[in-house]
Amino acid sequence: MKIGIIGAGIVGQTLGAALAGKGHDLRLGVRVVNEAELDKPRNQAETLRAWTARTGVEVAPFAAAAAHGEVIINATGGGVAIEALTLAGAENLAGKVLLDISNPLDFSTGTLTALPDLTNTTSVGEEVQKAFPQARVVKSLNTTWIGVGVNPAMVPGEIDVFVAGNDEAAKETVTTILKRDFGWASVIDLGDIGAARGTEQFLTLWFRLYQRIGNGAFGIKVVR
Amino acid sequence: MKIGIIGAGIVGQTLGAALAGKGHDLRLGVRVVNEAELDKPRNQAETLRAWTARTGVEVAPFAAAAAHGEVIINATGGGVAIEALTLAGAENLAGKVLLDISNPLDFSTGTLTALPDLTNTTSVGEEVQKAFPQARVVKSLNTTWIGVGVNPAMVPGEIDVFVAGNDEAAKETVTTILKRDFGWASVIDLGDIGAARGTEQFLTLWFRLYQRIGNGAFGIKVVR
Repeated sequence: MKIGIIGAGIVGQTLGAALAGKGHDLRLGVRVVNEAELDKPRNQAETLRAWTARTGVEVAPFAAAAAHGEVIINATGGGVAIEALTLAGAENLAGKVLLDISNPLDFSTGTLTALPDLTNTTSVGEEVQKAFPQARVVKSLNTTWIGVGVNPAMVPGEIDVFVAGNDEAAKETVTTILKRDFGWASVIDLGDIGAARGTEQFLTLWFRLYQRIGNGAFGIKVVR
Repeated sequence: MKIGIIGAGIVGQTLGAALAGKGHDLRLGVRVVNEAELDKPRNQAETLRAWTARTGVEVAPFAAAAAHGEVIINATGGGVAIEALTLAGAENLAGKVLLDISNPLDFSTGTLTALPDLTNTTSVGEEVQKAFPQARVVKSLNTTWIGVGVNPAMVPGEIDVFVAGNDEAAKETVTTILKRDFGWASVIDLGDIGAARGTEQFLTLWFRLYQRIGNGAFGIKVVR
């Protein structure tokens, strides 16, 4: 499948490497592509030059990555998602599955804080759907560390991943990627994109669990 | 143990009946105690007269219930918690374990919405601790339906309950109640009262799960 990833931080790189390993035809989207950008140190991640050498995946500007994909993945931070997707171009998102894995978090304070404008009465997922009404937005993969997201088998026991969105076929496409490419056994459909609010706000609990456990190699199972 | 419950809705009644059944010496606190109040219909719950006849537990004004307890349980809604606890009296809370099980939710809109003033940068648990600095606040039992809270064995599989608070001994007291009286096998200590923010914001996800599952008889397990 042709996939365009928007955002080349640790999340975009991890997803991209995992999807490339499954034979998808990818582009990893960054704001600007030039020599300096390819060698720039990236927090917790590889330089783009090292990553592209390792994966064989081409790095491209946001708009080219989005134009390439049948499925677009928003792997930017929640606070900059709309801006990044605007650079990617509404025309490159229209009619396509837009998998939004971002969270409305502010790390600038040293502790994790939710961005007030993107919580409570809304969410990044809902705002992305509003800003790009022709994109078929699916919220998913935002409730675990991305290492677990692309390899849930690393957790010893079945855990759940959630999907939310207004387009049933788009949710099916994402569910297929989750199950076939990443090995998720249990995908819970929470309903429309309004449910993004719940999965995004869960991160406040997730972060405390992360601090207590000491790493991100965990997930949650809904037991009933 | 002497326990005072603040709030006589379905949550306070369910907790009170469960704790009375374990031999605790309880008072169920309401704003006003008079004949009309005893027979007033209560949403999803019994009249106080029927409840007290069934459980043998005395109904008392907030302040008398708080004065009675060594452990106080806040079973009011998050939006009225500080007001109700002020009526209960700071002097009746000082030095005592205050188990806060409330959530900052607004049900008035028909869908579940978090109260903005009590989320993101704070939580009910944190605000209660600030308002009553001498109370030893423990946040717990706010992440499941109260029916599961007092009887986790109704869920087929191990699930977790969380505690958060600044006073280690107070968390131990609450953990003992959770394990011995309600049968919780797994109690996760999330750290200081700041973690109340995470468990309260989880309710936005909980509510979607509740809608999809169709009842509250579920819980979550942190798998690692």
